[in-house]
Amino acid sequence: MSELRNDRLLRALLRQPVDRTPVWMMRQAGRYLPEYRATRERAGSFMDLCRSAELACEVTLQPLARFELDAAILFSDILTIPDAMGLGLYFAEGEGPKFEHPLRDAAAIRALRKPDMKQDLGYVMAAVSTIRQALAGRVPLIGFAGSPWTLATYMIEGASSRDFSRAKSMLYDQPEAAHQLLALLADTVAEYLNAQIEAGAQAVQIFDTWGGALSTPAYQQFSLAYMRRVVEQLRREHDGRRVPVILFTKGGGQWLELMADTGCDALGLDWTTELHGARERVGQRIALQGNMDPAILNAAPEAIRAEVSRILESFGPGSGHVFNLGHGITPGVPPEHAGAMIRAVTELSPAFHQSG
Amino acid sequence: MSELRNDRLLRALLRQPVDRTPVWMMRQAGRYLPEYRATRERAGSFMDLCRSAELACEVTLQPLARFELDAAILFSDILTIPDAMGLGLYFAEGEGPKFEHPLRDAAAIRALRKPDMKQDLGYVMAAVSTIRQALAGRVPLIGFAGSPWTLATYMIEGASSRDFSRAKSMLYDQPEAAHQLLALLADTVAEYLNAQIEAGAQAVQIFDTWGGALSTPAYQQFSLAYMRRVVEQLRREHDGRRVPVILFTKGGGQWLELMADTGCDALGLDWTTELHGARERVGQRIALQGNMDPAILNAAPEAIRAEVSRILESFGPGSGHVFNLGHGITPGVPPEHAGAMIRAVTELSPAFHQSG
Repeated sequence: MSELRNDRLLRALLRQPVDRTPVWMMRQAGRYLPEYRATRERAGSFMDLCRSAELACEVTLQPLARFELDAAILFSDILTIPDAMGLGLYFAEGEGPKFEHPLRDAAAIRALRKPDMKQDLGYVMAAVSTIRQALAGRVPLIGFAGSPWTLATYMIEGASSRDFSRAKSMLYDQPEAAHQLLALLADTVAEYLNAQIEAGAQAVQIFDTWGGALSTPAYQQFSLAYMRRVVEQLRREHDGRRVPVILFTKGGGQWLELMADTGCDALGLDWTTELHGARERVGQRIALQGNMDPAILNAAPEAIRAEVSRILESFGPGSGHVFNLGHGITPGVPPEHAGAMIRAVTELSPAFHQSG
Repeated sequence: MSELRNDRLLRALLRQPVDRTPVWMMRQAGRYLPEYRATRERAGSFMDLCRSAELACEVTLQPLARFELDAAILFSDILTIPDAMGLGLYFAEGEGPKFEHPLRDAAAIRALRKPDMKQDLGYVMAAVSTIRQALAGRVPLIGFAGSPWTLATYMIEGASSRDFSRAKSMLYDQPEAAHQLLALLADTVAEYLNAQIEAGAQAVQIFDTWGGALSTPAYQQFSLAYMRRVVEQLRREHDGRRVPVILFTKGGGQWLELMADTGCDALGLDWTTELHGARERVGQRIALQGNMDPAILNAAPEAIRAEVSRILESFGPGSGHVFNLGHGITPGVPPEHAGAMIRAVTELSPAFHQSG
């Protein structure tokens, strides 16, 4: 493998000194880019795009050709695991992900098996190694997976949900079945992320998109406990280098101390949590990633630059911050607005990293 | 006016001793009740139902006939104010509220005028006084309004929104126009709530449904500041009795101290915030209302009772807690499950209020 020429991301995730704050964007390869939409059209379905190592690599690299980003992130979907478990993932036009065979009872959960990483998910590892080769050491590659609870919500509801009434009813009415499902998912997610690390992912992020929909005790019992189970099983070193783990619970601002206790290296924050306060609470233990409101990318470039400045100021001087959005970039954002944000980070952040 | 025979709600909101924890539910008059659906059908449109004092009174009282609730809440909509400002509120089947004339620029904002409370919103005050008479002192009546920011999101977006991209762009691109709109809304909301108090509302709640979608500084500047402006203008006493003000920002768990500083009497909490910690943070200053996850009402009655017990335990002994859901009850909940929750509060909470 080529030597890594830009390791700002990995260094900041481990709170080691850097020359400026590294920056990447959740969903940085996506519909807001015309070149992505062109590749997507050529690919056929969304899952065809994910299943082709060449096309997944192509779209992963597209934002790096435009912007001075400090990381690439594997182009894939969080629902590859339930799909590989036989639930039949499909995307209804304009409706988000759906499953042909959602989990409707404890019997369906008992019948689930861990997918085979080679046979059922080998296409993801092929994409990872293809991207690593294409990057040729330019920036690190981030692998990812959905959290057990987040995967479970889609598997039980069969689709996106507003209030998760089926999934939450299972937690309260059939806690044993819920724990069985979440344990199986945790072990699968760990194996899946380890396979990505083995294939070349240099950092990994766990996306707990729906953990914030739970009460505090339910979050601890049904989401956090299983993310800890994932983290504990992860390979933390590969090719002689530490592989940092980022944990992102959207809406988890009240639970940072609990999240830091999982043993992860960094926490992703949405924009409702101030970096300043978050750093005071857990910044001696872990790095922080975030947290600009993606909606601000619809505002004018000067407003975007002012917000970047405010966020850098809020974290303050020193390493341990990875600049990112607080959630994925949305389809309607003009690419030059994303560029304005990234440029502002590269121009304004060196002042926060002067040695001394 | 008849003497108030059950004043548990008002006493708990002012942290005065009570025999048990009072309980009511956000959206307690609503689609989960078959008797509501019958009245709604008879009324014609949803707004016809809101505009008829007799029918609004009928549905307001329906949950009190079924359950041992400690408060009635005015049946109305949070969008009556923008409708009275001429934006043309309508409800598209299965799509939520919409406006015929959303605010698309600063000129539209400059052209807005405060509505006349008698001429444009007199139907709301007629409903309040009709309900007060019908209650005949059985329980207090709660009035309410949307927060300035929450109203502004609907007025700018023209409908419900997932990410508020138009409304947030206005905050960042045209802050002066945004402040002009929010100031006008704050003064209107204050006048509207004072008119409800004058007509008979014995407590009022400000619903900041979308404050939690903002970053901390944006929340302070664009939502909280204008709720404070409302609270400062409210009539806090009527008929010789204190009229408590409840402030509810959904997703506001990180901002309780800031919210308590507005001068309100109580904070509504969603289910992501633990009552125990909230009480430690602000319980010496204000009362707390909440906070069961409404999704749990889809679970079995035994699970509901266990969750009520956990929440009462989390607040602990003494006054200053009003039991409620952490958000409105959802249409699919079986009424007997709501009954199980209310019964659990009435049966389990006296143990937390033994004098001594």
